Parts: sequence; structure tokens; C-alpha cells
Amino acid sequence: MQIGLIGLGKMGYNLALNLRDHKHHVTAFDIAIENIDRAAAEGITPAYTIPELAQQLSGRKVIWIMVPAGAAVDTVISQLLPHLNPQDILIDGGNSNYKDSVRRAEQLKATDMYFLDCGTSGGLSGARNGACTMVGGEPEAFQYCEEIFRDVSVENGYLYVGKPGSGHFVKMIHNGVEYGMMQAIAEGFELLHKSEYNINYKEVARVWNHGSVVRSWLMELVENAFRKDPQLSAIKGIMYSSGEGKWTLETALDMQVATPVIALSLLMRYRSLETDTFTGKVVAALRNEFGGHQVDKAD
Amino acid sequence: MQIGLIGLGKMGYNLALNLRDHKHHVTAFDIAIENIDRAAAEGITPAYTIPELAQQLSGRKVIWIMVPAGAAVDTVISQLLPHLNPQDILIDGGNSNYKDSVRRAEQLKATDMYFLDCGTSGGLSGARNGACTMVGGEPEAFQYCEEIFRDVSVENGYLYVGKPGSGHFVKMIHNGVEYGMMQAIAEGFELLHKSEYNINYKEVARVWNHGSVVRSWLMELVENAFRKDPQLSAIKGIMYSSGEGKWTLETALDMQVATPVIALSLLMRYRSLETDTFTGKVVAALRNEFGGHQVDKAD
Amino acid sequence: MQIGLIGLGKMGYNLALNLRDHKHHVTAFDIAIENIDRAAAEGITPAYTIPELAQQLSGRKVIWIMVPAGAAVDTVISQLLPHLNPQDILIDGGNSNYKDSVRRAEQLKATDMYFLDCGTSGGLSGARNGACTMVGGEPEAFQYCEEIFRDVSVENGYLYVGKPGSGHFVKMIHNGVEYGMMQAIAEGFELLHKSEYNINYKEVARVWNHGSVVRSWLMELVENAFRKDPQLSAIKGIMYSSGEGKWTLETALDMQVATPVIALSLLMRYRSLETDTFTGKVVAALRNEFGGHQVDKAD
Amino acid sequence: MQIGLIGLGKMGYNLALNLRDHKHHVTAFDIAIENIDRAAAEGITPAYTIPELAQQLSGRKVIWIMVPAGAAVDTVISQLLPHLNPQDILIDGGNSNYKDSVRRAEQLKATDMYFLDCGTSGGLSGARNGACTMVGGEPEAFQYCEEIFRDVSVENGYLYVGKPGSGHFVKMIHNGVEYGMMQAIAEGFELLHKSEYNINYKEVARVWNHGSVVRSWLMELVENAFRKDPQLSAIKGIMYSSGEGKWTLETALDMQVATPVIALSLLMRYRSLETDTFTGKVVAALRNEFGGHQVDKAD
Repeated sequence: MQIGLIGLGKMGYNLALNLRDHKHHVTAFDIAIENIDRAAAEGITPAYTIPELAQQLSGRKVIWIMVPAGAAVDTVISQLLPHLNPQDILIDGGNSNYKDSVRRAEQLKATDMYFLDCGTSGGLSGARNGACTMVGGEPEAFQYCEEIFRDVSVENGYLYVGKPGSGHFVKMIHNGVEYGMMQAIAEGFELLHKSEYNINYKEVARVWNHGSVVRSWLMELVENAFRKDPQLSAIKGIMYSSGEGKWTLETALDMQVATPVIALSLLMRYRSLETDTFTGKVVAALRNEFGGHQVDKAD
Repeated sequence: MQIGLIGLGKMGYNLALNLRDHKHHVTAFDIAIENIDRAAAEGITPAYTIPELAQQLSGRKVIWIMVPAGAAVDTVISQLLPHLNPQDILIDGGNSNYKDSVRRAEQLKATDMYFLDCGTSGGLSGARNGACTMVGGEPEAFQYCEEIFRDVSVENGYLYVGKPGSGHFVKMIHNGVEYGMMQAIAEGFELLHKSEYNINYKEVARVWNHGSVVRSWLMELVENAFRKDPQLSAIKGIMYSSGEGKWTLETALDMQVATPVIALSLLMRYRSLETDTFTGKVVAALRNEFGGHQVDKAD
Repeated sequence: MQIGLIGLGKMGYNLALNLRDHKHHVTAFDIAIENIDRAAAEGITPAYTIPELAQQLSGRKVIWIMVPAGAAVDTVISQLLPHLNPQDILIDGGNSNYKDSVRRAEQLKATDMYFLDCGTSGGLSGARNGACTMVGGEPEAFQYCEEIFRDVSVENGYLYVGKPGSGHFVKMIHNGVEYGMMQAIAEGFELLHKSEYNINYKEVARVWNHGSVVRSWLMELVENAFRKDPQLSAIKGIMYSSGEGKWTLETALDMQVATPVIALSLLMRYRSLETDTFTGKVVAALRNEFGGHQVDKAD
Repeated sequence: MQIGLIGLGKMGYNLALNLRDHKHHVTAFDIAIENIDRAAAEGITPAYTIPELAQQLSGRKVIWIMVPAGAAVDTVISQLLPHLNPQDILIDGGNSNYKDSVRRAEQLKATDMYFLDCGTSGGLSGARNGACTMVGGEPEAFQYCEEIFRDVSVENGYLYVGKPGSGHFVKMIHNGVEYGMMQAIAEGFELLHKSEYNINYKEVARVWNHGSVVRSWLMELVENAFRKDPQLSAIKGIMYSSGEGKWTLETALDMQVATPVIALSLLMRYRSLETDTFTGKVVAALRNEFGGHQVDKAD
């Protein structure tokens, strides 16, 4: 199948190779020329502008957008729109907020075009060798593109969820669950780390991956990480986040659902961004005020 | 190898068959005669008292204890002790508190016997077909029994952790992680459940198990559960607990480690035991006191 | 001073009497005629429409809006606008979101009018006898109205915080703190309630209000509540919420601040709205899947 | 009344002066001679050994113990016991674990002596000028000492709770509530601190103490702290803890009560003891493993 691809970053590049391996004809654009050339060297047809990409696609166009969530997606869509025809299909495979996807689907529907929101999980290796995709949008458009999702996903690894937005919604929740699982695993290793036992973390991760209740891909990645750096001594414990955990919690608040584990997973990430906190200063000051407890002096 | 087994409950029975399949000669006792007879019908040598079990074992005795954590383990040990000789080895494969295991190892060491604490994960299917085992105790005793742990575990699924108590310690932490992962997954499905989308939970669990970051054995079990009961409509959301999550949190408090996700996973289990709370009554009463906000009347 | 007042609900009515007691001339409107008449019987000048209210005010108008947060405030403003002149001042004394207040201040500024956002705390008794007010907006407008804030507040109980929105911002945070304090107090009484001791809750609240570290107005209200209903047996523990706790947490997420206590106070309110949870069903199902643990059957 | 006092630390010294002001005859011992001499200069009768203290008390002895919780209390009791007679009364006014108090009451009861467990709140100023006291023990012993509790407490500030241990139990819960309230307040000020508004924290604390729902002694102490150091710039945000919050949470776990706010208040104190965490390292490593997200390098 002929597929346009916009965005050749870490995820988009791997996806391009994955599509190519499945005999799709991929024409790709990126804002960085070097990314285009790197892909071209791998058999991807280069397009150096968005109009050029659109022109290279014949018949009913299918264009997969793989750019950072937010304004970039809207920019790409607005640049594509003059070059699209009714029935054409845009797929947003990035980590967009599902509310944006609902809006974009409505925007395209107004000119008889289709928008599919595709949550893509599995990281870089997934994008390259078989991802997990969760797709929302009009059923007709999904069916037209189903072979694409089947091909880029591992076996059994794609799902048509339902109406527009539902693909990114399910992916968002997936990431909320991921935050909770990661924090749970990490707290466990901190307890091992602080214990009186002299524990080989890699070996624990290894054995937990064979037959235990907590065996999981994340635990396999933990094992990999400890294989490379047995004490993680080269890594600072700063936990960045890229939005989906926050959206999950905001959604929980809107729906009045108690999700304490997802909430705390996110809040502890924020806490890790600080070395000292004003909260702590206030509590320390209070303890000093009523009990005469010593405070530590700030540097 | 000749192995004594005390306890033929859900876990012990499956373990007995697992050991038998690996050509070990298992002599087993249980406090319920019907459990012994059921095992005997499967080729396990029956022992109808603990002394009888001890007498049927010749040479250096290895006895695996698989009874509920707590006083039952001490009772079994005290009944076994008169029938043991120096160098004999007791394995506690249950969910004992690691502090008890440290104490029991010292108790047996006083008469030159060995105690191995073996955390066993993988549930009933693991006990039957290949578990995950984490073992603490004297290295000499572990080596003597290593083939047992290798045989009852899946490939790569056993680990000698270190000194006495460390096996049950690592298993305890494993369960703390398990609590957090389960709560994270469950919160995710509650969000799907409360959403405006009409989502097929089993299909989401299925796709999340193929290529996604959260793929895991627990997610496979979720898929199984939804296959049987797509809305879990037959199940009440009461989350019981059996001690290891609590011990993990108590250990975290003793070591002054911040484990909010494990803590909340446990506290939400406690919350699920109640349909109404005194906390809620006090907050509702307060809102009424200062703001005149209506309270709901108790039935 | 001549003051217009829009909204004679629980808070507005008490505020009207409070202003009247301080020799202000209050002209008031409400959408419910009976509320207007009730106020008129107490010496408040009635206005049966918003235009009528505006016409009754001479010179530079000062109008206090005390209606439910959200669309109602915008409706009132749009109905008032045709009757206002440059330099007139609107005060929003309700629990509006501070972002709305920033927007409304800009809206009024476009026609040279002023908007003051006034967070009002202290509940009904505060509105009647002396509230706590936190005010944001242009300093010139605040100074013109300062005597109003001084009069309706307890001594030392008003503050000009700063630029538009800051009054409602500080009030929002106040409510977030309030959520946390209430939940902390309530958890304490649940622990007393579940203990083996036969404790008189009212007496504990009483003694905690005399000399202890936790003495506070909220604890006095707890004492009142227990005086009326020693076991709170007439009250269901459903904890409703009206928005400000949620906004506080959403603000924390936007600012990447870890506020676990405020977060959990809110989430436990949501939890109290449910008698059973899907989260609980999933965890119970999982425990059954891997460990054969019995589930409770749903009714 | 004639009272023995053991322990002249920060709390004990202030209590001695408080008792003296109320015309009690206080004989006091401390392990530091300088503390005894300092008290003697204020009119307290010095005792340089525990036997000497006991000998100086005539008739039915009442001895108030004000030493650090834990082994020190047992040491004092064992040194006192040979010098006590039936009917004598020991009061433990420190922050002892209520389970220890139950045990000690039984120990003394065996020789017909009495033990009163007195939780003392209000900090140093309370000990000096009027504390809040919660007392457990035999009613007969409480009545004999009631005037002491009345005199050292603010008006209405003492309570006989019930059987042995109940005084320290209620004090422990008090401290759990205190942890939650402090953390709630502190989180609020961190939100003010991180906001776009330029907020005067002392002024906010001041206005919140006049008429608002969150007015409280703790908020007054916050105001004091900000008066001295408007940005708390001299204070490091390390939040130490001295046991009672931990005991409260452990008690909650034993009683299976969901106390998320008290739990998180404690866990955030532990978190504040660290500048980096192993939890954070594991999460950062995982994000790098699956998504290629950059980690920050450890120093």
C-alpha cells in the first residue's frame, strides 16, 4: 500500500522501516533534511516538503502523522489540508490528547475526510519490529487501513476501539497504568536497595521474570538496565514525564474516579524534579515553632 | 530425591504433583486426611502423622513445609524437631514473614540443622507446572537442595538470594510490587469503565498483551477474567489481602522509604472492606457545619 | 456606602445583613422573588430585575456578585454590562475559578470598568458575622472598596493579594488546604472509632481544642457535630465536593507540584461516592485467577 | 501537692515551672546535673539521684516521668520500683507508644501501684503555660491526680480517656492528625510559592487566621515562621519525625483502616530525607529502555 509518513524522529523512523519491511511504499517527510536522507538510504521515498509528499501519493491518500503531540499535529494538518481530497485518511500515531483527536476528526469530517487516532505502544523496538496499536475513528476508514495496523503491529497487537478519540483515550489510560506499574516496580527495588541484605538486583529481576506473578515486559527492561549498570550508579533519579500520565489523572478527576496509584506515580515524578521543597521548609519551620525541633540550615 | 512435604492445601498439592513429575519421591502429610488420600491417589506416599512422615525419610532429611504463615509453621517445626538429626534441612515454601524465617533459621542452627526460606510465586499454576522460587539460608543447604528448586521452578525461575530470611524478604517485596501493579491495572480499567466510550475490556486487555509496554502475566489474567465475565458483574469489588502487602509497607516504614504506590494499594484494599466510613461521616458533618451543605441521611 | 448585591442565597443573604449592620445601603436582586422579599423584610432595598438594581445605584457603582461559580457569573455580568459606566466596579465574592476571574477582569477592563475577585471564607456564620476575604484586582479599585472588605470581615480578616485572579487563587488554595485538614481530622476520628477503646469523640474534640497542636476552627466544628450526634449515626459518609479541591489539584499538576495530601483528600471524596468499584472487581478477579482466592459474589 | 518529676529536658523543665506556678511542690531529677541546677534556681527542689528523689517524697508518691519514649522510660521505672509502695502513682507524660503503656500499667498493677499514661500536647509553650493532656489508667488514680492535670493544662484542656494506654493512644492519633494538617498547610504554601503571583506568605497566613475555615494554631505558627523568615530561605526542607506518625500508620494497618492522608504525610517526610532515590533511578532507567528517553547523569 502507498503510505505517506510525516515525522521521521525516533518513532517515525522505526515505523517507516517497519512499514517498508511489510512491502508498503512509504513516502516520508521530516522537518530535518538529515532525517529524510537517512530514511531515503533505507529505501524510503523522500519528500522534502509537505505538498511534495501529498503530490507523490496517488488515488485515495493515507498519511500517517508521527510528530510530537500538540500544536505540531495541527500545523501538519493545516499544511496537508489544501492537498487532500474527500475520502483521504489521516492517521495520527503520536501521543495526542484524545480530546484533540475528537476535535480533529470533526474538523476533517467537515470536508469528508477521515481521521484515525492511533495510540502506539511498545517503544522504539515496537515501532521497528511490531508495535501495539489502538485505533479510533470511523469504521470505514479503519477497515481501509486495517492492513497497515496489522502489519506494523505484533500478531494480535492491534485493536479498533471505537469512535473518534477512543484510540488515543485507550492509549492514554495505558500510559497511566504504565506509570503505576513502573512506580510499583521501582519502589520494590528501592526496598531491596535499602535492606540489610546484599541483593543482586539483576538476578532478582531475572527470577521475577520467570514464573512469578509480576513477570512483565517492564521487568525484563529492568533486568536489561541492571545488566548494564548493576547499581544504576550512572543515573540520576529524575523522573520526567511527557503528558499522558497527567492527562490520565485529569480525566480521572473529570470522571470523579479515585485513582490513587496513578495519581501518586505522577506526583512522585514531580517530586523527583526537586532537590528541596517549600512544603518541607514549612513543615520543618512548624516543627521548630511548636516543639523547638532543630531545623537543618539551608546551604 | 526423597522429599517430605507437610501441607497439601491448594499450593502444597500442586507442588507435590510437580515434584512427583520430576521423579522425586514425595512423602506427604496434611492435617486433613482427605487431602492425604487425594495425593496418595496421585502417587504421593501418604503419612498420617508428622512422626510417621519423619520415619519414612531415610538418611539426610529434606522436608518442605507448605502451611499457612504464622503459628502453623512453628507448630510443624516443633513437632518435627524430635525426629530430626543434625544436617537435616527444613524448607519453608509458604508466605512467612522474613523476620520469622530469620528466627527459625537461628532456632534450627542451634542443633546443627538447616532452614531454607523459599518464597514461592506463580500461583497455583506455577506450583503445578513451574513456579518462581527465591531462596534464603546457608549456602551449603541450598546447594544440597538446589535440584529441588530447579525442578519445581520454570527454567531460570529460581534464585539463591543470600543469608537466612532473604528469600522470604524478596518474596515479600515481590508481593508489594504485585499489589501496586494490580491496583494500577485495575484503576486503568475503572477509567475505561467510567468513560463515555463503549469499550470491550477483554479486547483491550488482549491488545495490551501484544506489543504494549504494559504486557504482563497479570494483564493476561485480566484478559482471562474478562473472557469469563465481560463486565465482572458477578464479582463484588472487595479486595482482601493476606499479609505480605502489609509487611512490605511496615518494612518500608522501618527503613524510612517512601513507597506511596505500595501504601495506597494496600489502603485501598482496606477501604474496599467498608461500604461506609467514619472518615466520610466526619467530613460530611464538617461540610454541613461550616457551609450548610446537605448531608445524606444514613439508612 | 451604596452597594448593589446580586444573589441572595445562603451566602448572599448573610452577607447582605452583615453589610446592612455596618450601615451600608444594600440594594439586592435574586432570581427567586421570595429571597428578595425575605431580604427586604430585613431592611435590604429590593430590586426585582438586574436593570432595576443598576438604576437604583447612583454615581460610581459597586456591585457585589454572590452567585454560583461558572456560567451564572458570566450571565450576570453580561446583563449588567449595558447598565454600567466606566470606573464602575464589580466584585465577584463567589468561589469562581481564578482563571475565569482573570478573563473577566480583562473583559471589564476593555470598557474601563473594574473587576475584583474576592475569595470569601468562613462559611455562613462568617458571611453573617465576619468573614475572611482575599481580594485580587487593580489596586485603585480595591482601595475604593476597601471599607467594604473591612466591614464584612472579622478584624484583620481581609487581604489585598495582588493582580486580577489572585484573590480567587488564594481562596482556591485555602480550600485545598481545607480538604487536607478535614481529611486528616476525619481519619483520626476513624482510628479512634475503630480502636478497642470506648472513646467519647466529642470529649476528644473538646480537649484537642484546648491547648493542643491541632486546635482549630474545624476541630471546634467537629465538637459541635459530635455534640448533636455523638456517633454521627444519622449521617452517611458521602463526601461531596464543589470544585475548588479539584481546581487546586489541577493547578498543582499544571505547576508540577507534588501535593499528595490534597490529591488524596479529593480522591477519597470521589471514592466515597461509590459503594462498589470496578477497580475492586478487577483486583478481586485477579486474586482469584492467580491464587484461587474466593471472590465475594455481587448481589 | 507534692510531685516528683523525672526529666528536665525542654518539656520537663517547662512543666516543672508550670507546676511550681500552680503551688505544687516539685522535686525533680535529671541525668544532667546542669538541668537540675537550672531548675533549682527556679525554685524546684533538686534530687541528684532517683532514690534521693523517692526519699524526698512523703506519703502516697506521685511521680511524673518526662523522658524520651522507649527504653528510657523502662529504665526509670525499674530504678524507681524499689523505692515505691502500693498505691503510689507513676505518670508517663512523654510520647510513649500506647502498647508500652498498657504493658507498664500491668507491670505496676502487679505490685498494687498505678500507672497513668498522659499524652501531652501543645509544645513547649503549652508545657510552660497550659498544655493539653489526655490521660489513661485506673479511674481511682486519675481522680487522685486530677488537680495536677487540671493545673498544668489550659482551661478545659485535660481529659480522662479511659483504661490504661488510652491516653497515649489518643495522643498518638492526635499526632497523626497533626502530621496530616501540617502537610496540607505546607502543600498549600508550596502552591502559592510556585504560582505566577507574587504572594506575601505571612500576610496570607495572617488573613487565613482571621475568619477563614482553616484558622488554627498551626496556621498561627506558620505566620510566626514567615514573620521571622519571609521566604524560609534559611531552612532546609528536611522533615524529621519522632515516631508517633509512624505508630499511627502502623495502628491503622493493624486495624485495616484506610488513612491515606496520614500515610502520605509520613511518607513525604521520609522522601524529604533523600536528595535522590533509587525509585527514581529505576523509573528513569525504564523510560530510557523502552522509549530512548534521556536520563540525567548522576554526579
